[in-house]
Amino acid sequence: FRKQNLSVEELLKDLLKGNKTALGKAITMIESNQIKHQQISQKIIEGALPYTKKSIRIGITGVPGVGKSTFIESFGTYLTKMGRKVAVLAVDPSSSLTRGSILGDKTRMEDLVKDKNAFIRPSPSGDSLGGVAKKTRESILLCEAAGFEVILIETVGVGQSETTVHSMTDFFLLLKLAGAGDELQGIKRGIIEMADAIVINKADGDNMKAAQHAKLEFKRALHLYPIKENNWKPKVSLCSALYDIGIAEIWELISEFETQTKENGHFEKKRIEQNKFWLYQTINDHLKSRFYQNKKIKPALEKQLKLIEENKTTAYAAAKYLLELD
Amino acid sequence: FRKQNLSVEELLKDLLKGNKTALGKAITMIESNQIKHQQISQKIIEGALPYTKKSIRIGITGVPGVGKSTFIESFGTYLTKMGRKVAVLAVDPSSSLTRGSILGDKTRMEDLVKDKNAFIRPSPSGDSLGGVAKKTRESILLCEAAGFEVILIETVGVGQSETTVHSMTDFFLLLKLAGAGDELQGIKRGIIEMADAIVINKADGDNMKAAQHAKLEFKRALHLYPIKENNWKPKVSLCSALYDIGIAEIWELISEFETQTKENGHFEKKRIEQNKFWLYQTINDHLKSRFYQNKKIKPALEKQLKLIEENKTTAYAAAKYLLELD
Repeated sequence: FRKQNLSVEELLKDLLKGNKTALGKAITMIESNQIKHQQISQKIIEGALPYTKKSIRIGITGVPGVGKSTFIESFGTYLTKMGRKVAVLAVDPSSSLTRGSILGDKTRMEDLVKDKNAFIRPSPSGDSLGGVAKKTRESILLCEAAGFEVILIETVGVGQSETTVHSMTDFFLLLKLAGAGDELQGIKRGIIEMADAIVINKADGDNMKAAQHAKLEFKRALHLYPIKENNWKPKVSLCSALYDIGIAEIWELISEFETQTKENGHFEKKRIEQNKFWLYQTINDHLKSRFYQNKKIKPALEKQLKLIEENKTTAYAAAKYLLELD
Repeated sequence: FRKQNLSVEELLKDLLKGNKTALGKAITMIESNQIKHQQISQKIIEGALPYTKKSIRIGITGVPGVGKSTFIESFGTYLTKMGRKVAVLAVDPSSSLTRGSILGDKTRMEDLVKDKNAFIRPSPSGDSLGGVAKKTRESILLCEAAGFEVILIETVGVGQSETTVHSMTDFFLLLKLAGAGDELQGIKRGIIEMADAIVINKADGDNMKAAQHAKLEFKRALHLYPIKENNWKPKVSLCSALYDIGIAEIWELISEFETQTKENGHFEKKRIEQNKFWLYQTINDHLKSRFYQNKKIKPALEKQLKLIEENKTTAYAAAKYLLELD
């Protein structure tokens, strides 16, 4: 960073002009766990905040094999062709272990990766989902400051990652396959409940009939859920990302959602709720990291955990002891 | 408390002897939000901790109308007749609003309430599930110190309350009715996944055939889930709490669970994991309450939330501002 002889001010200036290299470098600072880089990224974020522009943040989830990369390639290219600037981020807490299961292989998005109006960034690595979420949320702000108008945030069904992405997006899109038998998974983990649209991908050729059947099934399943506070009735749509079929309709549907929820005030309301949630999250994360990274606490915590394992203390007594050390 | 002229030491002594009045008073101290009472309860807990004895903690859940009170009356009475000392607690975060929807009306357990070997306590009120959970967990310890060997913790399906009860019990029992159509609910919220046994209540008279059918259905549903780490295969059982049918079999089943998981070490392992979880919970709760109850923070937080609502600041900037005040 220093080698390139670029000051924070210059980096910020370039970022605000929409320079993708500057944006990439700024996100690298956000993703770094080095104290020095964290200080730099804090300055960049503060500088960028007044310039974050209007955007729509779209969460995209689906099990592996559903065609998320192909869908984003097709959907993103459709948007850039309309003159929109599109940023693609990913939330994948497992990627630090598996070295990038989502978006790690950019070659899966051949066209979009070369598109001057698109910015693609794999999932940050992180010790925890909370860490990944923080980095992603800050990256969204920088993308918006750099003029990106549509932010696609991809996630794979790993534990709570969908809930996390839902908490930072305006619209939540669930990709499905016909007859994949993962309906129970979606219900079990409450993902269907969060979806603003269910899109059945690979609805082409021989698969068409099954896809249409699945559409009816999902429509029926959605009826089981109460009407959402924002009055939006989740839609079920078919597409074939590979053949660019049904992509325009999905954008239309999202635009309809945007218009409707902006009219009834729920778009703004949700953003405010998310910001409040994020305020508390940021504070709580900070309080915890301040405590657990305290040099006195670290070894003492290890010792107390050991005592718990040996049944020589209780959770209550151990907590009290540690809190008094702080 | 003071009026009764009873010192903490005397209260503790009586509690350790198994005196239910003393136990009740001690729990009242735990449930109080007054600083003075919290200091007293802390002393009592510390004094009681070395004397907490072996117990089995059983979580019981089910939708309203499934017959939880009748089940606990029948099951509890069965156990006290065998000479066991049984404590019944409840976790119901809604009870502070609705004035005790579970166990609030003790008359629903006519026999158990008069039973000298039973101790029944309605849900503590609390601002949050976290608050209720803390109070309940501390009450469990006092019940154990008072010699109660079977702790039944009842909850109703309100948001995350089942997960909370699951995190503080050894065995989790889900009560169901035949053909009640709430199967989806159980799957959706991950409750079936947590169950060590599903007990279909009201399996009597005309209902018998439907109950037997439901038993098969649930057995099939349980096959969808992977084998648990503790190697316990969740069981499905029928009972009629009203006519005391099938109650002995449920205790047998729980005893089998206890023997099996104590042999393979998972009973102890789970308790240790729960204790570690509780150590972190206690610390994190304390860090948060210390911060949010800070006199400088309270008004400043109000102001920052207002600024977020008016879009005059970001979550990030507001959090930074508040953390620097601390």
